Amino acid sequence: MNFTDEYFMDLAIAEAEKAGALGEVPIGAIIVHNNEVIGSAHNLRETTQNAVTHAELMAIQQACEKIGSWRLEETTLYVTLEPCPMCAGAILQSRIPRVVYGARDIKAGCVHSLYTLLNDSRMNHECEVTEGIKAEQCGELLSTFFRELRARKKEEKRLRKLAEEK
Amino acid sequence: MNFTDEYFMDLAIAEAEKAGALGEVPIGAIIVHNNEVIGSAHNLRETTQNAVTHAELMAIQQACEKIGSWRLEETTLYVTLEPCPMCAGAILQSRIPRVVYGARDIKAGCVHSLYTLLNDSRMNHECEVTEGIKAEQCGELLSTFFRELRARKKEEKRLRKLAEEK
Repeated sequence: MNFTDEYFMDLAIAEAEKAGALGEVPIGAIIVHNNEVIGSAHNLRETTQNAVTHAELMAIQQACEKIGSWRLEETTLYVTLEPCPMCAGAILQSRIPRVVYGARDIKAGCVHSLYTLLNDSRMNHECEVTEGIKAEQCGELLSTFFRELRARKKEEKRLRKLAEEK
Repeated sequence: MNFTDEYFMDLAIAEAEKAGALGEVPIGAIIVHNNEVIGSAHNLRETTQNAVTHAELMAIQQACEKIGSWRLEETTLYVTLEPCPMCAGAILQSRIPRVVYGARDIKAGCVHSLYTLLNDSRMNHECEVTEGIKAEQCGELLSTFFRELRARKKEEKRLRKLAEEK
């Protein structure tokens, strides 16, 4: 097996697709330790109605449980979208040494876009970060999702208006 | 009953004391909705060996479950210590409108100390923040905890050395 960043990002993308199939914003994450996946999750915010059920945060919880430690040493987290402040903070808290992400999140990303939380020498942990792995595919998942969502809302509005006119 | 910020901070302090009694860094948080406590938790990182089990994050999870929504509208979060990036991010994710904290965390605080994450107009949510409620008591809990921890470690070292010399 060829354990490249692309290989593991494909697993994160598969997680994102599971979210999309549930009508959730398609974001997926996995955590790898010695080439073994020890955490994998997808965004479930709408399904759970729980604000913290982002892919990365749940993957971190799983990995801590699997390893039996809050320190996720010698692991790599793969995520399809640049982490938000909560997830970047959870990455720092769990001491994950390496983070690989797909697409940038220019509106809320806290690794490069709005802040560089994973590389702030004042914090008690810093990460090695690789961005842009399968970025196009990761971003396309999201843009397709939102395009379809807008189309669905537009159609619902049209049908509602039609019903009102009757 | 006089539902002041001080009254609710006392409840957060009581949570922090529960953490301290377990040998955890004493930090506590509660979430209040219409003067009712809908989430209360204390730091459990060592007990659970789960990196995300900070007081605020667990209180947010509880409150979402109680309300049945990831949006914690019309709530106030009280926490004894200035939130870290993860918890500040979770506060943004859950749309908590008001945050009251006790002591500043000059090393990792992301509300005033290192960043002002709860008041960044680029994000999709901003909070009203009150700091310094019972700050001295909240800070004293922490400094006592770390003073005792250092003393215990020193004593353990002394006893180890003594045993080696025998």
